[in-house]
Amino acid sequence: MKVGFIGLGNMGQAISGRILDAGYDLVVYNRTRSKAEELEKKGAKVADSIAEACKGRDVVFTMLSDDKALNQVVDGGLLETLARGAIHVPMGTHSVTALSELKQRHDAAGHRFVPAPVLGRPDAAAAGQLGIVPAGPKETVDELEPLFAACGRRTFYAGTNPAGAAAVKLANNMVLGCAIEALAESFALTRKFDVDPQVFKEVLTDGLFASPSYKVYANIIANEAYDKVGFSVHLGFKDSNLIMAAGQAAQVPLPSLNVFRDSLLEAFAHGEGDLDWSVMGRVRARAGGLK
Amino acid sequence: MKVGFIGLGNMGQAISGRILDAGYDLVVYNRTRSKAEELEKKGAKVADSIAEACKGRDVVFTMLSDDKALNQVVDGGLLETLARGAIHVPMGTHSVTALSELKQRHDAAGHRFVPAPVLGRPDAAAAGQLGIVPAGPKETVDELEPLFAACGRRTFYAGTNPAGAAAVKLANNMVLGCAIEALAESFALTRKFDVDPQVFKEVLTDGLFASPSYKVYANIIANEAYDKVGFSVHLGFKDSNLIMAAGQAAQVPLPSLNVFRDSLLEAFAHGEGDLDWSVMGRVRARAGGLK
Amino acid sequence: MKVGFIGLGNMGQAISGRILDAGYDLVVYNRTRSKAEELEKKGAKVADSIAEACKGRDVVFTMLSDDKALNQVVDGGLLETLARGAIHVPMGTHSVTALSELKQRHDAAGHRFVPAPVLGRPDAAAAGQLGIVPAGPKETVDELEPLFAACGRRTFYAGTNPAGAAAVKLANNMVLGCAIEALAESFALTRKFDVDPQVFKEVLTDGLFASPSYKVYANIIANEAYDKVGFSVHLGFKDSNLIMAAGQAAQVPLPSLNVFRDSLLEAFAHGEGDLDWSVMGRVRARAGGLK
Amino acid sequence: MKVGFIGLGNMGQAISGRILDAGYDLVVYNRTRSKAEELEKKGAKVADSIAEACKGRDVVFTMLSDDKALNQVVDGGLLETLARGAIHVPMGTHSVTALSELKQRHDAAGHRFVPAPVLGRPDAAAAGQLGIVPAGPKETVDELEPLFAACGRRTFYAGTNPAGAAAVKLANNMVLGCAIEALAESFALTRKFDVDPQVFKEVLTDGLFASPSYKVYANIIANEAYDKVGFSVHLGFKDSNLIMAAGQAAQVPLPSLNVFRDSLLEAFAHGEGDLDWSVMGRVRARAGGLK
Repeated sequence: MKVGFIGLGNMGQAISGRILDAGYDLVVYNRTRSKAEELEKKGAKVADSIAEACKGRDVVFTMLSDDKALNQVVDGGLLETLARGAIHVPMGTHSVTALSELKQRHDAAGHRFVPAPVLGRPDAAAAGQLGIVPAGPKETVDELEPLFAACGRRTFYAGTNPAGAAAVKLANNMVLGCAIEALAESFALTRKFDVDPQVFKEVLTDGLFASPSYKVYANIIANEAYDKVGFSVHLGFKDSNLIMAAGQAAQVPLPSLNVFRDSLLEAFAHGEGDLDWSVMGRVRARAGGLK
Repeated sequence: MKVGFIGLGNMGQAISGRILDAGYDLVVYNRTRSKAEELEKKGAKVADSIAEACKGRDVVFTMLSDDKALNQVVDGGLLETLARGAIHVPMGTHSVTALSELKQRHDAAGHRFVPAPVLGRPDAAAAGQLGIVPAGPKETVDELEPLFAACGRRTFYAGTNPAGAAAVKLANNMVLGCAIEALAESFALTRKFDVDPQVFKEVLTDGLFASPSYKVYANIIANEAYDKVGFSVHLGFKDSNLIMAAGQAAQVPLPSLNVFRDSLLEAFAHGEGDLDWSVMGRVRARAGGLK
Repeated sequence: MKVGFIGLGNMGQAISGRILDAGYDLVVYNRTRSKAEELEKKGAKVADSIAEACKGRDVVFTMLSDDKALNQVVDGGLLETLARGAIHVPMGTHSVTALSELKQRHDAAGHRFVPAPVLGRPDAAAAGQLGIVPAGPKETVDELEPLFAACGRRTFYAGTNPAGAAAVKLANNMVLGCAIEALAESFALTRKFDVDPQVFKEVLTDGLFASPSYKVYANIIANEAYDKVGFSVHLGFKDSNLIMAAGQAAQVPLPSLNVFRDSLLEAFAHGEGDLDWSVMGRVRARAGGLK
Repeated sequence: MKVGFIGLGNMGQAISGRILDAGYDLVVYNRTRSKAEELEKKGAKVADSIAEACKGRDVVFTMLSDDKALNQVVDGGLLETLARGAIHVPMGTHSVTALSELKQRHDAAGHRFVPAPVLGRPDAAAAGQLGIVPAGPKETVDELEPLFAACGRRTFYAGTNPAGAAAVKLANNMVLGCAIEALAESFALTRKFDVDPQVFKEVLTDGLFASPSYKVYANIIANEAYDKVGFSVHLGFKDSNLIMAAGQAAQVPLPSLNVFRDSLLEAFAHGEGDLDWSVMGRVRARAGGLK
């Protein structure tokens, strides 16, 4: 399989590096060419245009920051250059609507379309430890499995509806946002009764909530270490808008989302947009009159 | 140490059994005497009154279902019989206000007071695997540690404020309720995009949320198995009212609590009060027009 | 009809004054006797005990601040002294549960029971401009109509379920609380776009919302005049708890109530409990980072 | 003053008719020309293009359904044809962001810009009873006052920030949405206690809430007459998204908006998108298990 890869941010570099290591013929493209240098040294061809990265490729991955960037790439050469029967695999976090619309355009052009957002951070990507959530025709997903196996630890098939892949990714992030908000409220509550936050953190993460998400975020909130930014309020809010749009498209009220989205908005209003999104902990403490 | 134990429901029987096994001199009391039979066979003395279970004891545990039952026991002999300097350890889930008020009454009577709610179910109690969350003077808690070690796996010291013990227990349950509501909303969302609930369950519990709470509840919601009741809507709602009262006492808004409390209320309104409280999954699916 | 009246706060004095003016034979009682002096001068008999205010009376009104005060009066002589067939008319704002329970006790005692909460402030009461919301058997309410007509401007029959009277009163107050919260949010929003609050107030109250409630509260919020207290955060919160209890009894989620109740809680947390409950305006402005 | 008017839906026809009646030289344009016929008979010139409706005009009004339609008109001839110093007055309900962006484009082109959304329905427009909410430089707004006076009953100056005009309009609609949700919840609550909805309607609208908004909507909800559609769920939801976007731009959490927006979403999910947006009444009743 000949592979193209467009979008070489941290995630894109890590994933395309894995594909290259697995022995695939790889052409990469990035608007800022310098991001491609390391891959070039390792043997990737570097395209000078989107079209060049798509021409003659069996599969083209895109890893782009948002819908706008995705549509610019699609309109900037991908849609028109990709061969009939070739597969476009957008790996970024996109809106359900963008994926549904893009599906129709690819159908009209005779392309195959398998959105496959990923679960995990760049370091997990580099280590091949991502979760990958493809959606699309089962046989196409199966065809891509060796590539997914090169990139990630496990593939979760999200069904034939391409929007399903985005929904899984967004719903996963929503559960995380809700968990952080719940932590934020519960730490504010226990602090008011003079409970040592470190003790409350132990209670939670020792038992029912002994998972990475709670360990990481209970630790940040217990220590009020919001300036070590793993995922900023800006990014969290961007995701929360995508989740809200998914709820709208699906006609499903998501009241818990509203709650943490409002906490993020309140963080912006207090100049905390660049902090880690777990600064919800501070928002809730402030509402309770703490500090 | 001579120990009294009042309240022999499932939890009470399991915990007092552990105390007995650890070799303590134990007198037990339960309104319905038959619940004490097994303990009697194993060597516990069975009191015929609350007063008899308190007289001459160094420590009296109570494990009662709510504030009302606790106050009945306190007024029904405990307060007046307990020796000066003896310790009352209520292990049930009580309101912060009830514990704060009881603290004053015990102070006036010269008793020591260490509320110590527990984390875990009866089977964990029988296996000595409970988490125990005592609050009160540090030296009294230390004095009790051998007893706690007999009952549980780990002791989490909640500080000197007796209400802190309740706050930790309630906040822990709140985080759980929020997690279930988040699951409920996220399953409703992904179902609308044709995602197999079993796959979404795998996504969640394989990675960020690989903890007992999510595994148990994602499984129930994915299978809509709300009739296997681990913790009913009634019990969940009772807790949610205690949490709300704690938020009121502490003057801390808890918007995420409101959300899942409303889901439980909606479950009642649809005749689902006897189902598992994860029936929030059905409430959210219904709001989204599913089924 | 011989009338008793228990509870001579501002409202009680005003209403019993109207009954006296209408020519009824009236015995009044208040724990603090001095509150009865003015009525005594105008011709009311003053009882020395609850029992004396109930003995031989056809109707006994109570106007008490909460459920606890009501139950103290009921247990302190009213229930045992009231004649069979006589009518108890509690006019205070009570919980639906308290009224439902009291109904059963009066039934058992052969009394008739018509809760009749009132809409309006003491000055409206003195001017006979209250709205009165009785619930109970239609013929009993009809029998009482001349008395209600003496006290108020209009009677709204809330049906045969005594809890219905409380529900109407509480639901009315809930709509008011929601209106204030909506004002609070909308003023915060428009202020952020440099809109003069006085202009926004005019927009609202000139047209769709040209009613007393909006005029009063938009004015306070536009002027941030929260220290002129018509109804304090304390009272608003007390009502919000009664409304929440009504929602619980009725199994009806009330998400809008949650929102303004949380704003009141946040006001408490910032030491604003003694201000007017429209201080929600400040809570919302603060959340938006204003001032 | 020579006037252009683009967008002849019900509102556009009514308002441009008022301008014509006031004696202004008027050119109108609508994509579907037939909508202009009546105005033509009354003396308006009918343009064949957007450009023709803008050329040589001192003021051009647009009354368009959304941001997309506005931007199509702006890009389809308005921006390029409007004379330097001429004024564009968009009267539709637009997002704060769209207006802020358009301000910059008009500034660059040397145009003046006074967004002026209107309060009221087409029948109010025809009768000259609209409220008009212009924002922009005070002297330009003053210059336009005779035109506004021809169209409406009263002008509310929203300040110099063009987004302020949208904020006032949207905040006004938000207060209305919140009022309907509050009614929805309160009717559900009182119905559960057997209160006749007609009586509860009387209680509300007789006193504190004796304003057009409550009278109209309490009446619909009391009679469950959701199929007489004054403003559909679709339109209400469209507005709620604009309000949410305004809250995002202003960084102001709007929790009451979330509540009624979710009710509208739940209405969609139950196939009620074409009903009046007061169908929130049915959503809340359903949540409470009614019917």
